[in-house]
Amino acid sequence: MWSIKNMDLEDTLLMMPGPVSVAPRVLRAMSKPMINHRSAEFAGIYTDCRGILADVFQTKNDIFLLSGSGTAGMEAAVGSVAGSGEKVIAIENGKFGERFKDLAALYAELVPLEFEWGLPVDLEKVKEKLEEGAKAITLVHNETSAGIMNPAAEIGKLAKKYDALFIMDGVTSLGGDEVKVDEWGVDIAIVGSQKCFAAPPGMAAVSVSEKAFEAMNCMKKRLYYNDLKAYKKSGDKPRPETPYTPAIPLFYALQEALHIVKEEGMEARIKRHRTLSEAVRAAAGALNIEMFPQLNEYSQYSNTITALKSPAGIDGEDIKNDMKKRGVIIAGGQERLKSKIFRIGNMGNVTARDVLSTIQQLEIVLHKHGYIDSVGAGTEAATRVIDRL
Amino acid sequence: MWSIKNMDLEDTLLMMPGPVSVAPRVLRAMSKPMINHRSAEFAGIYTDCRGILADVFQTKNDIFLLSGSGTAGMEAAVGSVAGSGEKVIAIENGKFGERFKDLAALYAELVPLEFEWGLPVDLEKVKEKLEEGAKAITLVHNETSAGIMNPAAEIGKLAKKYDALFIMDGVTSLGGDEVKVDEWGVDIAIVGSQKCFAAPPGMAAVSVSEKAFEAMNCMKKRLYYNDLKAYKKSGDKPRPETPYTPAIPLFYALQEALHIVKEEGMEARIKRHRTLSEAVRAAAGALNIEMFPQLNEYSQYSNTITALKSPAGIDGEDIKNDMKKRGVIIAGGQERLKSKIFRIGNMGNVTARDVLSTIQQLEIVLHKHGYIDSVGAGTEAATRVIDRL
Repeated sequence: MWSIKNMDLEDTLLMMPGPVSVAPRVLRAMSKPMINHRSAEFAGIYTDCRGILADVFQTKNDIFLLSGSGTAGMEAAVGSVAGSGEKVIAIENGKFGERFKDLAALYAELVPLEFEWGLPVDLEKVKEKLEEGAKAITLVHNETSAGIMNPAAEIGKLAKKYDALFIMDGVTSLGGDEVKVDEWGVDIAIVGSQKCFAAPPGMAAVSVSEKAFEAMNCMKKRLYYNDLKAYKKSGDKPRPETPYTPAIPLFYALQEALHIVKEEGMEARIKRHRTLSEAVRAAAGALNIEMFPQLNEYSQYSNTITALKSPAGIDGEDIKNDMKKRGVIIAGGQERLKSKIFRIGNMGNVTARDVLSTIQQLEIVLHKHGYIDSVGAGTEAATRVIDRL
Repeated sequence: MWSIKNMDLEDTLLMMPGPVSVAPRVLRAMSKPMINHRSAEFAGIYTDCRGILADVFQTKNDIFLLSGSGTAGMEAAVGSVAGSGEKVIAIENGKFGERFKDLAALYAELVPLEFEWGLPVDLEKVKEKLEEGAKAITLVHNETSAGIMNPAAEIGKLAKKYDALFIMDGVTSLGGDEVKVDEWGVDIAIVGSQKCFAAPPGMAAVSVSEKAFEAMNCMKKRLYYNDLKAYKKSGDKPRPETPYTPAIPLFYALQEALHIVKEEGMEARIKRHRTLSEAVRAAAGALNIEMFPQLNEYSQYSNTITALKSPAGIDGEDIKNDMKKRGVIIAGGQERLKSKIFRIGNMGNVTARDVLSTIQQLEIVLHKHGYIDSVGAGTEAATRVIDRL
């Protein structure tokens, strides 16, 4: 239902932490006719997607595709392995860590491990909690709300040592940054379709280890639509399928998006994400804008989203709204961070030109607010980084 | 990912009970760019869909759109109002009734009320169960697996009399046949996008009465992704949204599909569904194929799908497979009904020509199996009915 009013959406640059811009060939894939979801045709698409995802996840574990958002995947993970009141340590240093905490409170005996949003995870405290014993521990690898990358490899090591299942939200890292599911010992990893894979929103992929399946098999059923045991049963059939009717056009789109990922190659894709986020950080530095997250030796700035403090005297929401009027959609802060920060995503098929265009518009906005005297410093700093690509 | 092998999908006639054929203008709607799901643009789409759905549901109740299949909607209904072990009477006379039973067993104290698949619901037995007291009663209005239409109005009346919440799966009736949510006293009605609305699969719409909200508010939270209380909170905002990232292209598609429904008008749409299913039944009679469901005075044959007994000596799966080779996708029987029946859907934007073409191919298949001596009787019988349209 187009109208003149929203036609300019097609000229908008989406630099949010998802949904991200979807390539025309991926959009076109959704215009194929519907098929029977119990057919060989559907099984072929499902199998193709699972194969490419396994390479990206760097795993030999089973992978399932849920017709639901990343949150559905997070619920599937926690509810499937901790449905009988087991202890689950939920690490929180941002909004999505808090979501795991809410899920653990609903399905398990919650052991919260809270850090202020944007502060790094203290591994000593993780160790202390694990020493007390737990069925599972949850971590958001790339905490989008705060722009911080948490130490997944280290926490995976600790989880293994203390025999806890490691549940990792890789929603905004998988497909854009390095994630080694098997090497890091991630028992359940979750990704959303609309982030670094640059497919439309509405799907989650979940990898599940043997150890996690064993835990599930001892567990009372607590979930229905998002029950991973049901996904396992349907996915193991000679003609793999999903337990309930899948969102067929989203499967078409994800398959095409995954082929784009494969064509680019994960090595090049990771390098692109890392370089472009570094370019945003360099521009922010040159424009005298502070990074929001605080790091310790185990944490890093996110390579797929940059969270910046609102410059003195300017509300982050105003920056977001001014940018939108200029055709660039960035994100503000969520909940307690609203107005205090703004965030620039570089997930998916974002190009150097997209990032430079965003920085250019940001400079104009900051200049109009009187925060900088002239434009150009951000572009120059970003270009120096991008030139290495 | 097209290949020569599956190009013929575009020439296939989908006569299944969902997913159904999706109109080209609906497919094209999905090729619009992604938008921020917390924006005014998204709120506009959501509001437009909710308005049209309210007219189709004939309700003043709140309506929510879930990014998940009809099963997600069924789980949302049962899990939201019966999460603390209350008694739920689950009426079963087919596979989807069984699904409600499974959900009630998971979230409530199940009171099963089982009839053999394809047999009618006995209202006396419903009354007996309700007299014993229950929080809610579930019914599948149009039991797709058996091709039978259950007496929703009568059960709504009984539920009201005994003060039980009435949860109705209208997944394959809403949008194609008459459903009067408010008049019948349906507290929670559920529909899937890929049935009579002829949108792609992956979405469910759920209407919720005040009485159901009151029940939810006294209830321990048991669901996360499919929690209707979370949908209520997000849907009530001045700029309505969904609690978690919605499947944006499926919203685009559903909006366009609902506009097609509005343009045709529900009265004409219902008449078309009723006439076309009657045409299928007339053809079956002329071809000496028996109807599968058994009726009583309160039940009817489905107006959106026809379940037929496999003719003597022919496996229903063979009919389905032979039809597929000839370019028409119909459904077989599910689980215990596999091989024993086959089913022809007429949901969505199905035309008289689609139904006649299906009957023609069925005649050819039956002729090749030696079940009929000549072709044409089915077409003639169907045409007599269709001529009334």
